[in-house]
Amino acid sequence: MSGSMYGTIFRISTWGESHGKGVGVTIDGCPSGISLCEDDIQKDLDKRKPGQSPFSTPRKEKDEVEILSGIFEGKTTGTPIAMIVRNTNQRSYDYTEISKIYRPGHTDYTYDQKYGFRDYRGGGRSSGRETTARVAAGAVAKKILSEIGIKITGYTSSIGPIKVNKDHFKEEEIWNNFLSMPDVEAVKLAEEYLTKLKEQGNSSGGSIECIVSGMPSGLGEPVFEKLDANLAKGLMSVGAVKAIEIGAGIEVATKTGIENNDFYQYQEDGRIIKESNNAGGIIGGISDGSDIFLKVYIKPTPSIEMTQRAVNKNGENVMINVEGRHDPIIVPRAVIVVEAMVALTLVDMLLLNMSTKMDNVLKVYNKD
Amino acid sequence: MSGSMYGTIFRISTWGESHGKGVGVTIDGCPSGISLCEDDIQKDLDKRKPGQSPFSTPRKEKDEVEILSGIFEGKTTGTPIAMIVRNTNQRSYDYTEISKIYRPGHTDYTYDQKYGFRDYRGGGRSSGRETTARVAAGAVAKKILSEIGIKITGYTSSIGPIKVNKDHFKEEEIWNNFLSMPDVEAVKLAEEYLTKLKEQGNSSGGSIECIVSGMPSGLGEPVFEKLDANLAKGLMSVGAVKAIEIGAGIEVATKTGIENNDFYQYQEDGRIIKESNNAGGIIGGISDGSDIFLKVYIKPTPSIEMTQRAVNKNGENVMINVEGRHDPIIVPRAVIVVEAMVALTLVDMLLLNMSTKMDNVLKVYNKD
Amino acid sequence: MSGSMYGTIFRISTWGESHGKGVGVTIDGCPSGISLCEDDIQKDLDKRKPGQSPFSTPRKEKDEVEILSGIFEGKTTGTPIAMIVRNTNQRSYDYTEISKIYRPGHTDYTYDQKYGFRDYRGGGRSSGRETTARVAAGAVAKKILSEIGIKITGYTSSIGPIKVNKDHFKEEEIWNNFLSMPDVEAVKLAEEYLTKLKEQGNSSGGSIECIVSGMPSGLGEPVFEKLDANLAKGLMSVGAVKAIEIGAGIEVATKTGIENNDFYQYQEDGRIIKESNNAGGIIGGISDGSDIFLKVYIKPTPSIEMTQRAVNKNGENVMINVEGRHDPIIVPRAVIVVEAMVALTLVDMLLLNMSTKMDNVLKVYNKD
Amino acid sequence: MSGSMYGTIFRISTWGESHGKGVGVTIDGCPSGISLCEDDIQKDLDKRKPGQSPFSTPRKEKDEVEILSGIFEGKTTGTPIAMIVRNTNQRSYDYTEISKIYRPGHTDYTYDQKYGFRDYRGGGRSSGRETTARVAAGAVAKKILSEIGIKITGYTSSIGPIKVNKDHFKEEEIWNNFLSMPDVEAVKLAEEYLTKLKEQGNSSGGSIECIVSGMPSGLGEPVFEKLDANLAKGLMSVGAVKAIEIGAGIEVATKTGIENNDFYQYQEDGRIIKESNNAGGIIGGISDGSDIFLKVYIKPTPSIEMTQRAVNKNGENVMINVEGRHDPIIVPRAVIVVEAMVALTLVDMLLLNMSTKMDNVLKVYNKD
Repeated sequence: MSGSMYGTIFRISTWGESHGKGVGVTIDGCPSGISLCEDDIQKDLDKRKPGQSPFSTPRKEKDEVEILSGIFEGKTTGTPIAMIVRNTNQRSYDYTEISKIYRPGHTDYTYDQKYGFRDYRGGGRSSGRETTARVAAGAVAKKILSEIGIKITGYTSSIGPIKVNKDHFKEEEIWNNFLSMPDVEAVKLAEEYLTKLKEQGNSSGGSIECIVSGMPSGLGEPVFEKLDANLAKGLMSVGAVKAIEIGAGIEVATKTGIENNDFYQYQEDGRIIKESNNAGGIIGGISDGSDIFLKVYIKPTPSIEMTQRAVNKNGENVMINVEGRHDPIIVPRAVIVVEAMVALTLVDMLLLNMSTKMDNVLKVYNKD
Repeated sequence: MSGSMYGTIFRISTWGESHGKGVGVTIDGCPSGISLCEDDIQKDLDKRKPGQSPFSTPRKEKDEVEILSGIFEGKTTGTPIAMIVRNTNQRSYDYTEISKIYRPGHTDYTYDQKYGFRDYRGGGRSSGRETTARVAAGAVAKKILSEIGIKITGYTSSIGPIKVNKDHFKEEEIWNNFLSMPDVEAVKLAEEYLTKLKEQGNSSGGSIECIVSGMPSGLGEPVFEKLDANLAKGLMSVGAVKAIEIGAGIEVATKTGIENNDFYQYQEDGRIIKESNNAGGIIGGISDGSDIFLKVYIKPTPSIEMTQRAVNKNGENVMINVEGRHDPIIVPRAVIVVEAMVALTLVDMLLLNMSTKMDNVLKVYNKD
Repeated sequence: MSGSMYGTIFRISTWGESHGKGVGVTIDGCPSGISLCEDDIQKDLDKRKPGQSPFSTPRKEKDEVEILSGIFEGKTTGTPIAMIVRNTNQRSYDYTEISKIYRPGHTDYTYDQKYGFRDYRGGGRSSGRETTARVAAGAVAKKILSEIGIKITGYTSSIGPIKVNKDHFKEEEIWNNFLSMPDVEAVKLAEEYLTKLKEQGNSSGGSIECIVSGMPSGLGEPVFEKLDANLAKGLMSVGAVKAIEIGAGIEVATKTGIENNDFYQYQEDGRIIKESNNAGGIIGGISDGSDIFLKVYIKPTPSIEMTQRAVNKNGENVMINVEGRHDPIIVPRAVIVVEAMVALTLVDMLLLNMSTKMDNVLKVYNKD
Repeated sequence: MSGSMYGTIFRISTWGESHGKGVGVTIDGCPSGISLCEDDIQKDLDKRKPGQSPFSTPRKEKDEVEILSGIFEGKTTGTPIAMIVRNTNQRSYDYTEISKIYRPGHTDYTYDQKYGFRDYRGGGRSSGRETTARVAAGAVAKKILSEIGIKITGYTSSIGPIKVNKDHFKEEEIWNNFLSMPDVEAVKLAEEYLTKLKEQGNSSGGSIECIVSGMPSGLGEPVFEKLDANLAKGLMSVGAVKAIEIGAGIEVATKTGIENNDFYQYQEDGRIIKESNNAGGIIGGISDGSDIFLKVYIKPTPSIEMTQRAVNKNGENVMINVEGRHDPIIVPRAVIVVEAMVALTLVDMLLLNMSTKMDNVLKVYNKD
């Protein structure tokens, strides 16, 4: 069934494998009249591309995007925007052995079980390369959101045991280091940690936080299409994510009601604010206008150069030690992917919310 | 936009408010030929209904389900199954004041912002009463899953600071106590904790774990309709859930690759098992045939009888102390709701997966 | 799979059979703030209900609608509107024989083939009674359309060989006679024709035309969700419809380009009009602001009291002569159903079109 | 909103304009394990490509398809199949004038109204070039259908006043002449007719019939996702189609019940056949296993080289005479497009029907 599409109104369709001709995405449902060019997209793709850091795969890809349709005279036409990123760096490699083995933590076994066979060269659709398409589409979503005043800020919040210290938080540092961390001291410690793991051929997990500011209230549709429900789906669909928190997250389970409730207060300018934000900007699945705060936890990449127990298709237990070009940490490259999924989710909820009130319908059709 | 529908093939549509005529659900896409009667549904509804415990709302509802369509001679016909649960216990109450206040932690403000006004009597669609419809539909989903051999077991895993001890786990205890906990000692401690909070008019958060056994491999559709992505959406759509973990969950972020990878081994009977299950039964968004393990974290109910700061619609900051019939803990009643959302998600992914392989298509149309 | 839902944003879910407890519909995605009460719906249901004419089934049903949810203080809340129409007139009847026979023109055979068995009492979901739910939902859709200034006018345009004469067209006659015809002379001739058929136990086909005035331009989404494509689907989904025309319809096939093109001209008030309307108000799948004109052709009801060849489940060819309470003509009762499907389609396209232009997005979020 | 996607399980997403870089389609939900290569697609594209006949546009395009993803070792992997057809023949042309005019019969006006502006170079998404993507996807759908034994045969049934004579029908002639007609005498007459129109700069309408043989029974989902309803949508979404008939079509309106009912009879081999097929193979929206018969009526292309009244954006009525490279008849090239839409609709209904019966579910999961 069609699993490579996302969104209801602003709907994307992605395709491509790491060892095929490229990856791509078609955006259907983008409003007309938005200025858009390849640079708008390239700047996000550059944050995801490999080969930029000692801690990411040495595989080099330029990841250049080409817009194939949907733009006329520099503006979106309201019709499908197709984009392609060609694969350029594919080593020849002997896959004979790997094709017969089910590696731990990889999708070898589940893809074979589901489809009857698999593209064993690079993970097929389970390759992280698939996220290139998400980032390209996310960049378009961000253009729309920015016109409403919405801003998305993601960053690495932890790598293994090393956590960002909130007191050291500097937003301008995020894209200033290899680890997409807003805390220079944490960067230093994390680099040491990763260097050691890399020497072992091991890998590390980590976490990403994301803040959305400038939110309008009212986004999210009760009861199944809640804003947080859709964010959770979008984020959990990113390959290695194993846990998601909204607002105070797991801490709410040990709080009492009086501790967890966010008290409203009027500001002098007449706006309503909350004294705290345990809700993370979403109440009853609907945005309340305060910042959205969410966090995802990412497992260490299963691609490690260490001896592991595995099975082959001949019914044998085997020992493997897979060499390759892999990342000891994928978290920093996933930051822009998280931002993309948040952007794609928000823009869809933003457009879906337009028809919620009859007043809005009348406004659009000039009958108010 | 339509937010009260869930699923693609096995698709439900729910309706109703706490202070209206009732709540209901229509299931469209249920396969034909399944034995189904009201008792199948009632037994799950009875696990959710209020008024059974000193720790749930004293509001009494019989929550009797009536099947309105889709069954003929005791079997599903393949056409829509409509079900209704009438509301029977509605106190008269003066809502004049509450209608003008935005209570902390409630949806008063977000509903007003989204829709322009709200049903202030009982939360409208944001009332927990809405989950009655989920449970009714979930019971039908479980019938289908059980024919495939899939079993879902949810339970309260913590209440406030009190956690279930895995060594004390007894499945048969789960529905034997007011708190749906599988550990009799934890029940005792939690009851003491809740009794104290209740006296204060305060409430408690908690967590729920859920295990799915008998899973076929291959369920879940890359890359956006992954099994874990859909579970995350379904679970996060439950009112008070603020965090979700799959498998090892947040712990993966501090693990290394060699620690997190689950090693495959052949069993003597030729089946492949994993030595560990950090993946929680899902790799690359596809079930691997091992048990699914997930956990949700639930905030304390915002309905407390304590003095709180709030705002009213006249632009004033006010102090409120809302009396009512509320639960000091909603976690135990949410266990069956979690099970329902897992069941609804699984049955949809099960049916969607049928067309994944051409071999299956040929099998169904007798061309193999 | 879920086939009883219709629409994307304004989405309905229908249920029920002729010989069950009733039929119903849930509307999800109706904007908030619209005045709505049961009378709004009942007046359309009354146009469909049986037993009002010598030419419709003598089965009497009051078809009283009850709104179960989604309305508060006389207005739509933006959450699901559930409605039910209880079945009240069910004769006891011995279905032993009919359960074993596949009647010509009925769904007996196809339902058995699809589902493995069928509700043989009254056609199950293939009963015309199913359209009650469409009409109820359509009445709500019309309320929204009327606020935009859109009006839908359907009528019987032919019964067997008797055609309405456009020169005699009087809109006010449509609901003034048993046949929903706007031409009193045609009514007289059609009544004679039907009386003769009824004596034979035979039935008649016919056609329905529908005009939509007050259309905004811009509705319809290229290339698959065109306005005419969605109208065609909605109308062809009505039980007995076998052909659909938009605008000049089949005549376009014998026209030349110069004959078929509708020439634009400016009116004195600056509005653009077309000199002709062969397009039927839709060009390239998008409304052009002129009236929509469409026509459907309806087969004679297969339920006739005449001896026919049929087959039974024992592998035998048999002769049958089914008695029952059936309509010699269903066309007049289908007029309001056609209107309902047009209304449901239009309201969905109206809401979907809101997010087409970035200008509209900015308008709704007050950023223009 | 996303209008360039089609299907629920076998879901395509198309993109591209006549004057952009190309057109393309991504198929998501194609089952794994089907042999597929570019030749399978090219042979259908070649039936649509321009420049092959004196009666189609002289614009030459090779229309070569490139498969970008979803195939491994010659077989579908079950993941998205992306295909692209690059535009190669784009004349430079001065569009200054045309950009300010609303031509009759074209989408100039409706696109401007909907999107605020338009790609005036070649119709954007309203160009017939968009159908290239439908044909490419349709070719894949046909591969699946052929494995079930389903065959789709479309042909031109009339051009202007010239109709195919059923007695002269020869299937092998269809792709043997410029007009895709199965009747050599009709071809001769139609060529004469078209030559005359071409000299005038005029164009002609026509009709296409399509027969589907080898149908399994049971396809189509009551009540809104009926097989004929979805066929009607798919076909009406093709640019110039203005009317659709299923089976006896408009004739049913003048028939009586006894004339229209198709009587079943057992054949000697135990199979049930119908003595006639007024239903066109679909009863109650579900296939009955007999051949599907449908017909579409296509308007003359509005692109004519004759003087016409039009309006410009300055508020003036003007006379225009647009030169260009257009088809005096588009019907023959639309035959393969009609086949494609039928194939895409059928394959989706085929896959959707798999989960209708619990027996099928158990069969796929080996629990029967």
